Amino acid sequence: MRIARFSIDGNVAFGAVEGGSAPGEEGALVLDIIKGIPYADFELSGTKVPLSKVRLLPPVLPNKVVGIGRNYAEHAAELGNEVPDVPVAFFKPTTSVIGSGDAIEYPSFSQELHHEAELAVVIGRMCREVPRERVKDVILGYTCANDVTARDVQKREKQWARAKGFDTACPLGPWVETDLDPADVTIQCTVNGEQRQLGRTSDMIRSVEDLVVHITEAMTLLPGDVILTGTPAGVGPLNVGDEVAVTIEGIGTLTNKVIKRG
Amino acid sequence: MRIARFSIDGNVAFGAVEGGSAPGEEGALVLDIIKGIPYADFELSGTKVPLSKVRLLPPVLPNKVVGIGRNYAEHAAELGNEVPDVPVAFFKPTTSVIGSGDAIEYPSFSQELHHEAELAVVIGRMCREVPRERVKDVILGYTCANDVTARDVQKREKQWARAKGFDTACPLGPWVETDLDPADVTIQCTVNGEQRQLGRTSDMIRSVEDLVVHITEAMTLLPGDVILTGTPAGVGPLNVGDEVAVTIEGIGTLTNKVIKRG
Repeated sequence: MRIARFSIDGNVAFGAVEGGSAPGEEGALVLDIIKGIPYADFELSGTKVPLSKVRLLPPVLPNKVVGIGRNYAEHAAELGNEVPDVPVAFFKPTTSVIGSGDAIEYPSFSQELHHEAELAVVIGRMCREVPRERVKDVILGYTCANDVTARDVQKREKQWARAKGFDTACPLGPWVETDLDPADVTIQCTVNGEQRQLGRTSDMIRSVEDLVVHITEAMTLLPGDVILTGTPAGVGPLNVGDEVAVTIEGIGTLTNKVIKRG
Repeated sequence: MRIARFSIDGNVAFGAVEGGSAPGEEGALVLDIIKGIPYADFELSGTKVPLSKVRLLPPVLPNKVVGIGRNYAEHAAELGNEVPDVPVAFFKPTTSVIGSGDAIEYPSFSQELHHEAELAVVIGRMCREVPRERVKDVILGYTCANDVTARDVQKREKQWARAKGFDTACPLGPWVETDLDPADVTIQCTVNGEQRQLGRTSDMIRSVEDLVVHITEAMTLLPGDVILTGTPAGVGPLNVGDEVAVTIEGIGTLTNKVIKRG
């Protein structure tokens, strides 16, 4: 099931996306409004609204977003980094989260903004010290993410709070797919329709299971928390006016325009 | 004014602390229960409860905690680090926050837990790109923090999400002091009554104003968000069974016991 969060006429709701998701088919999509919340028992109301009539919101309201750096060997190499012995885990704050269709605001303190297309894991239940064989039980589903990074700031500042944590640096969406097998799907990033990144999740150095075990060894994850699983090779610049799109096979497309911070 | 958050008979409330705060005087302290919330207009109810009858909670519910590394030259030197050109900013997640009297749980993945006594800034209003002369307007007050760090993990992992972000790694309290001038107060840390750290905020490399300007250049801060301003020299090990206390002149004492994670 595809679960979207959206606003219509000033009301916010979750809905199940029904219909096709190929480019051009979006007009045919409808949302069946969810009674309850997706993290507990819920049912579909049967009340349907066309996707074209709503504004999509970030599909989750995370308490925290945990990012993972250098999880694809080719991407680590393109930035001149070695593959680390242990996963590189960092946080993006909730104030950086935006949805599909929202604008990425180019921050004033950077001159080198980069896109990073990533598979995002959405946590479904409170958990800590999750054993490998139980990882599937704590995951609600998957969405597309863009781990937008001020590359010049990342090089200057040893910890990445500002480089990866500025407002609008964490586009998530367009919805959460609960039925995906994340083992081997394509991740693509285009800028103004031109392909920049194309990878497969099977090239991840640490799997989704590895990452959930590693992170929850240290900290509790809450329903709606998000893990970004790293980006494949091909990262590159974003400029004001660009439209960047992250497409993951079996999920859909997350699209954001880059604007000057007002 | 000193604003505490506490629970009594299963209810959670904010209260103004009245009475002395010297060691041994805690029994004389009372809380005047606040009507409303401290981030907006509020008044005192006149209903008073003795501090000895309540359980103190973390005095704020942050959306994010921004930590600052190496902000005291002597501390940077004791760990063999240079003073950085720009502040080292990182996040601690809200799942790491505990209050005074709560237990620090020694995590299973570390054998070298360290205390770091710090002055914590509590943000009072939503803000971004705060000009230096307006910094005072966005601060609600100050509290004590212990930026508990798994030093061995910090050395192994390039980003500090696990080393500084595990559950219970962010004790805050005992309350927020709204009338403090943070320019030159003493910060002390004791373990089992023995002094380990003693510094003055006047030795901070970047002032509170510098840090608010630096952080809000990148991201929005929300009411209740916290900035940890770095630790003076003298960091050292914590062991299971230890009682660690952070005392800041003009605020009070934050006390936590270290236990084995259950």
